[in-house]
Amino acid sequence: MPTFTPDQLRSLASQCLQAAAVPEEDAVLTARLLVEANLTGHDTHGVRQVPRYVELIRDEAIVPGAPVTVLRETPTTAVLDGHHGLGFVGATRATELAIAKCRETRLSAVGVRNLNHVGRVGAYPEMVAAAGLVGLVYVNAQARGILVKPHGGLAPRMGTNPMGAGFPNPKGWPILLDFATSAVAGNKIRQAHTRGQPTGEGWIVRKDGTPTTNPEDFLEGLAMMLPLGGAQGHKGYALSVMVDLLSGVLAGAGTALAPAKDLNNGTFVICIDPEAFVERARYDRDVEALVDYLHATPTAPGDPPVMLPGEYEAKHRAARLEAGIELEPTVWQDLSACARQLGVALPQPRDAS
Amino acid sequence: MPTFTPDQLRSLASQCLQAAAVPEEDAVLTARLLVEANLTGHDTHGVRQVPRYVELIRDEAIVPGAPVTVLRETPTTAVLDGHHGLGFVGATRATELAIAKCRETRLSAVGVRNLNHVGRVGAYPEMVAAAGLVGLVYVNAQARGILVKPHGGLAPRMGTNPMGAGFPNPKGWPILLDFATSAVAGNKIRQAHTRGQPTGEGWIVRKDGTPTTNPEDFLEGLAMMLPLGGAQGHKGYALSVMVDLLSGVLAGAGTALAPAKDLNNGTFVICIDPEAFVERARYDRDVEALVDYLHATPTAPGDPPVMLPGEYEAKHRAARLEAGIELEPTVWQDLSACARQLGVALPQPRDAS
Repeated sequence: MPTFTPDQLRSLASQCLQAAAVPEEDAVLTARLLVEANLTGHDTHGVRQVPRYVELIRDEAIVPGAPVTVLRETPTTAVLDGHHGLGFVGATRATELAIAKCRETRLSAVGVRNLNHVGRVGAYPEMVAAAGLVGLVYVNAQARGILVKPHGGLAPRMGTNPMGAGFPNPKGWPILLDFATSAVAGNKIRQAHTRGQPTGEGWIVRKDGTPTTNPEDFLEGLAMMLPLGGAQGHKGYALSVMVDLLSGVLAGAGTALAPAKDLNNGTFVICIDPEAFVERARYDRDVEALVDYLHATPTAPGDPPVMLPGEYEAKHRAARLEAGIELEPTVWQDLSACARQLGVALPQPRDAS
Repeated sequence: MPTFTPDQLRSLASQCLQAAAVPEEDAVLTARLLVEANLTGHDTHGVRQVPRYVELIRDEAIVPGAPVTVLRETPTTAVLDGHHGLGFVGATRATELAIAKCRETRLSAVGVRNLNHVGRVGAYPEMVAAAGLVGLVYVNAQARGILVKPHGGLAPRMGTNPMGAGFPNPKGWPILLDFATSAVAGNKIRQAHTRGQPTGEGWIVRKDGTPTTNPEDFLEGLAMMLPLGGAQGHKGYALSVMVDLLSGVLAGAGTALAPAKDLNNGTFVICIDPEAFVERARYDRDVEALVDYLHATPTAPGDPPVMLPGEYEAKHRAARLEAGIELEPTVWQDLSACARQLGVALPQPRDAS
């Protein structure tokens, strides 16, 4: 498969976005976060999204260069308006403001509305953890994103409403949560379809409630996603409602039932300074001890060691920084076509087989 | 089954605790929260716990009348020490302090360590929601509470580490999350055993990884609990690690690996003033619209309407305020024996059949 250095892909993504009228600073930021998704093993949220964003810009669903403005502010809180710009920009500004406020007041919460797809949610708690703080992040969806049924219901009513959390870790990589409050993220179903595979059990049901593992049922709108939890789906559903209340109501992005032209990933970021609670040395000692203890959990013969949340991302990042980022042939094809249309030169893959 | 008014049970629980040397104020508070658990349909966390707490006081695992002191404080944050008193007292003081701080600074976080069983976790976000604020609550466990295996592991390493959230709701009852980050709470397995029933599928596995639905396997220490999520158990496991980092590390209660004489429910409470983000009228309108929209979800023929998180509690509360609280005969037997030993007079049940 064609393989690229992170720099090659960052440059390609940034140039495509700039050719589509995104200001340089925003394009560089978005490209960096897209490539981070590839590096951390989340290719579904990586550079493959560039053609989609370019199309959304053409369709005027994303406004390139839209400012991010402050609607309300207190020393500990703020509400921002992304004015329908690239979601990466609005969510990054919200996270940066939350970090800055947290340094002053030990605790902060910032919401941002009117922004498109924020990409890999984990990127934002990762920024918070890199600043030495604890971050909790909640992202909702409306309109086209309504794909998940409430527990006990028989129609889609919720987005996949992901949540994330990041904690500084003396081992070097952050402890990082990043997951949909549905059983799986929608892109996993699309990926199964692309690969000609069935979905996992319990990912989707048909709209009459009968189980299916055929991804086409979902893509054709005949099936809907299940909340996280299986028989305990009331828990995933409850988490999804919580995300919608924080991001849809408090950040003011609009809840599941609000109309939206396209995605409108309301984002709510909480930052906590751990040193308001414990000394850094004790924090580091306690986190390191917990990591070591969980790593030492016995496993079944032949099974890999138990990992901490965030270790998947850390391991992929280390491996791909070394080996480069492989793109699936169809992804490379779409990306090349998009770049050519925009008059952007293509990088030379390491292996164009 | 013997049925009581809430007042009868509050008085009985409070008198038993006072006879076991708990100061009146703490006994009244604990009795009120125990009866709230019965009222809201969580009998496992209700007055049936009184004999256990009395025993823990005798064993010096709970120190009656222990003060709750402030270890660290900033305008937005605090860390409290419960000095191994009743968990209800420490967790309530932490929640009250978080509410008071949030009124000043729009956002607050308070952790509390060295406290025993905090009971029904939902009680605390409920207090926050009743104050017109949004509450997020995390509770961890160590020592005797280590019953849940990490995803991919083959030994118990985590507590059931519950989390809760409360949101004011113009409908009158709070939107309330309250659940273990394991597939189910331990008391559900104990309840299945008491009733001579098998556990649900996916609640527990034997320590060699083979599935079982025999609650005795768990009670005899031959089985362990699974994290929430089934095939997506990495999500429940991740939530559990998050709870341990907030309550074990930040609140300083000690993580899963910390030794503890008995339960030591580290508790971490975040309060958010919604009016720092949106006007109250808009908050109320948006929440009400979301509730109505989810209520209107189609369901399978014969199925009950979709509920919001917290509605289970609200419906039980309304019904039991009307009909009284039924106690299972064995629970009433144990409670009666405990009261007699302590010289506390028994109330007359409405129906002693």
